[in-house]
Amino acid sequence: MERKEEVAVVVENKQIIFKGYIEGIPTESDMELKLGNKFKLKVPSEEEEEGCNGALVVKNLYLSCDPYMRGRMRHFFGSYIPPFVPGSVIEGFGVSKVVDSDNPNFKPGDFVTGMTGWEEYSLIKKPEQLRKIQPNDIPLSYYVGLLGMPGFTAYAGFHEVCAPKKGDYLFVSAASGAVGQLVGQLAKLHGCYVVGSAGTDQKVDLLKNKLGFDEAFNYKKETDLDAALKRFFPKGIDIYFDNVGGPMLDAALTNMRIHGRIAICGMVSEQSLSNPCGIYNMFNLISKRIRMQGFLQSDFLHLYPQFLEDVISYYKQGKIVYIEDMNEGLESAPAAFVGLYSGKNVGKQVICVARE
Amino acid sequence: MERKEEVAVVVENKQIIFKGYIEGIPTESDMELKLGNKFKLKVPSEEEEEGCNGALVVKNLYLSCDPYMRGRMRHFFGSYIPPFVPGSVIEGFGVSKVVDSDNPNFKPGDFVTGMTGWEEYSLIKKPEQLRKIQPNDIPLSYYVGLLGMPGFTAYAGFHEVCAPKKGDYLFVSAASGAVGQLVGQLAKLHGCYVVGSAGTDQKVDLLKNKLGFDEAFNYKKETDLDAALKRFFPKGIDIYFDNVGGPMLDAALTNMRIHGRIAICGMVSEQSLSNPCGIYNMFNLISKRIRMQGFLQSDFLHLYPQFLEDVISYYKQGKIVYIEDMNEGLESAPAAFVGLYSGKNVGKQVICVARE
Repeated sequence: MERKEEVAVVVENKQIIFKGYIEGIPTESDMELKLGNKFKLKVPSEEEEEGCNGALVVKNLYLSCDPYMRGRMRHFFGSYIPPFVPGSVIEGFGVSKVVDSDNPNFKPGDFVTGMTGWEEYSLIKKPEQLRKIQPNDIPLSYYVGLLGMPGFTAYAGFHEVCAPKKGDYLFVSAASGAVGQLVGQLAKLHGCYVVGSAGTDQKVDLLKNKLGFDEAFNYKKETDLDAALKRFFPKGIDIYFDNVGGPMLDAALTNMRIHGRIAICGMVSEQSLSNPCGIYNMFNLISKRIRMQGFLQSDFLHLYPQFLEDVISYYKQGKIVYIEDMNEGLESAPAAFVGLYSGKNVGKQVICVARE
Repeated sequence: MERKEEVAVVVENKQIIFKGYIEGIPTESDMELKLGNKFKLKVPSEEEEEGCNGALVVKNLYLSCDPYMRGRMRHFFGSYIPPFVPGSVIEGFGVSKVVDSDNPNFKPGDFVTGMTGWEEYSLIKKPEQLRKIQPNDIPLSYYVGLLGMPGFTAYAGFHEVCAPKKGDYLFVSAASGAVGQLVGQLAKLHGCYVVGSAGTDQKVDLLKNKLGFDEAFNYKKETDLDAALKRFFPKGIDIYFDNVGGPMLDAALTNMRIHGRIAICGMVSEQSLSNPCGIYNMFNLISKRIRMQGFLQSDFLHLYPQFLEDVISYYKQGKIVYIEDMNEGLESAPAAFVGLYSGKNVGKQVICVARE
């Protein structure tokens, strides 16, 4: 693309660096704030840097903390996404504003969402993975949550994997998280009976009193998950939307109804454990003829326009609510990310790098 | 039904009695041959015995030994079929000949297949569960195997659960068993690449040289099931037809391809274990987007006529072969049944009580 010669502004670009592969639960010291990095607010020419044909320079506004990212901190190449590179900036979903463009599909000032870096400014060499945000009155940060990957995961998983019917008994774990809160609300709109589990009383309160779940419980206060599920589902579970795997999945298997469906979503966190939990109640798959299906939202991208239309419409009508846990400043990113695994955050964990 | 008065013939009726609930693997001493029982070859009147309206008296010709029966030997009511009653005759699938009928749909001389008792003669109070066998040139015993529950399990599981495509890589465990041998052959006819596992070299030979499998291996000779599957499926597995559960299922999960399907069939044997094996590789469900589905043939009965037509036609054209392990005499039943769990039998385990 032919562009006129300009003098490029150079800024300082704070970054969050991934220090090295980990085992177990991430800690703040696995990441590092790096200062003093100079960054030119202009797409380099192909001579200056390879692969910059059609690239963008963006200013990052909101960054997303998602549980799947823990899998990328491990030296494990068998998953659907490669690990982070030690010493490099962390990657994740974000909302950004285009500063400079060598691409006819984007112009400075456009708001975009997709994979970006945990830094103030990013050079994006493959902008085809970005989606342009059409300006409307919905907060920009929602495009990494309700209207982004987690929201679409909930939408595709619920509608395409769970095969929901009106009146179904649905259970969702990690229910106040970015995915869980939308699964529960979509299920209520579909006419299901919805129970969610979460890890604090505050989250349980939120599920029952703000998100409209029929029931919710604090799994950390239950000594017997099987008994807890029997209490909330005396007739059994038709749909289990699994965001956690492990013992909760095992307990749910025992409580499924005939022809029940289990959508396997968040177990990616188990993947980073060296010793994953065993699942012992598999024979229920036969006796109850259960379908258990793992999925990734990326397999359903053809439904994304319909998702946006539906969820924006529900949101504008006040039929669904959405809860964010907003953290101010790039400096807050390591603590915000680590908070995902301690259950500290309430709602979708987001980092605000800049307002605009 | 009005019937003319006749003098009923009374015969001795040998029976195999279930002695009591077990843990672990069945042994011959869990069953007992009972002699001296008198049996009238005529359906009793409703006054003589309740529930005999519309009943049949049948002579049992062939009895089926099926792995699921072990689940009925345990004091466990959470499955799709209740346990046996201690002190009563064992129930199972069989081929029988009608001796006397109080039912307009059956007449003496008809051959039927369905649930009957492990005894020479049975009074069948609910003949609606029986299927009449249309005489043809296929051995009658095949109606408890190739053309019965195991064959239909293979057919429904393969076509309805596995979603097979030409060129798919298919793995089936317990491949020389009643279900496995048909799964493999249907898959070959469908254009799949088929590998089976079995527990003796004789069975492996059978799979490769008689049943037309592409490859087969003796899992008892493999120290590392994961490595064995990688050897036979360097590109991974599209379909795993699971007849065993446990460590083989775990190894298969690691070797599945993206969008692979796992039909869960024979794990019912795990159900009778007090300490089932844990499954540890569940995260593959997400990273490979695997669908894992338990099923029972009884959910697909609408396909039974099509199954019979297809499989009889394949068999008559010589496109599929079928291997039986025939045991002579009701007395052989306990040993034949126990043999299922030692891997002794080669092919479908059947007991011949009488030739006609």
